[in-house]
Amino acid sequence: MAVVPAPVDLATVLARIQRPWEPRTVAVLNDYDVRVVRTHGEFTRHSHPETDEVFLVLSGSLTIRMDDGDVTLGPGQLFVVPKGTSHQPYSPDGAEVLLVEPSATVNTGDTPSELTAGRRVV
Amino acid sequence: MAVVPAPVDLATVLARIQRPWEPRTVAVLNDYDVRVVRTHGEFTRHSHPETDEVFLVLSGSLTIRMDDGDVTLGPGQLFVVPKGTSHQPYSPDGAEVLLVEPSATVNTGDTPSELTAGRRVV
Repeated sequence: MAVVPAPVDLATVLARIQRPWEPRTVAVLNDYDVRVVRTHGEFTRHSHPETDEVFLVLSGSLTIRMDDGDVTLGPGQLFVVPKGTSHQPYSPDGAEVLLVEPSATVNTGDTPSELTAGRRVV
Repeated sequence: MAVVPAPVDLATVLARIQRPWEPRTVAVLNDYDVRVVRTHGEFTRHSHPETDEVFLVLSGSLTIRMDDGDVTLGPGQLFVVPKGTSHQPYSPDGAEVLLVEPSATVNTGDTPSELTAGRRVV
């Protein structure tokens, strides 16, 4: 009899992440990733010309600065940054965030920076 | 200046759902949905021949019965039911669950039942 994989415990994965802005892929859904990331401070302003991006805050607070204004998310709050929309995540006090996006998505999108991170699957 | 949409507060949406097993689409990501659902009791055993399905428990406890065994998820725990895998969600004490799946996905997959629910976007 095959063994059923254990569920992924998001808090356990997040506790192991040492640096902010480095997403970990915790699940793969067809050609999409579910990722978790710890945010702290100011991220690179960028856009994803090819995809929407879902942000769900698990703990803490995350502001997403966009040309049309800012949105601030607390725990249990979700926002979709539309495809091609310039956005800058900003999290002065830190947050734990769940992302959903195509597996090919790079965290800094069209704006490579020192915060660009490779895809890491846990 | 355009107005930035408000974030979706998952607890607010869940509080408005009167019946278990009726998902609400809270966000659309390309051709995928993020949905929330209240689970209680036993759901229809079914599979999705065309897609994987992500379950993330927000509160309570959800068991997913599969041919190879059961997996039980608590808050903050995530599981992917692979494409074509028969599964039966079971939640004797109730749970609040976040789902990610293609927008065309029907909750009862290949097994229509009295619990089949149409797509409802909040």
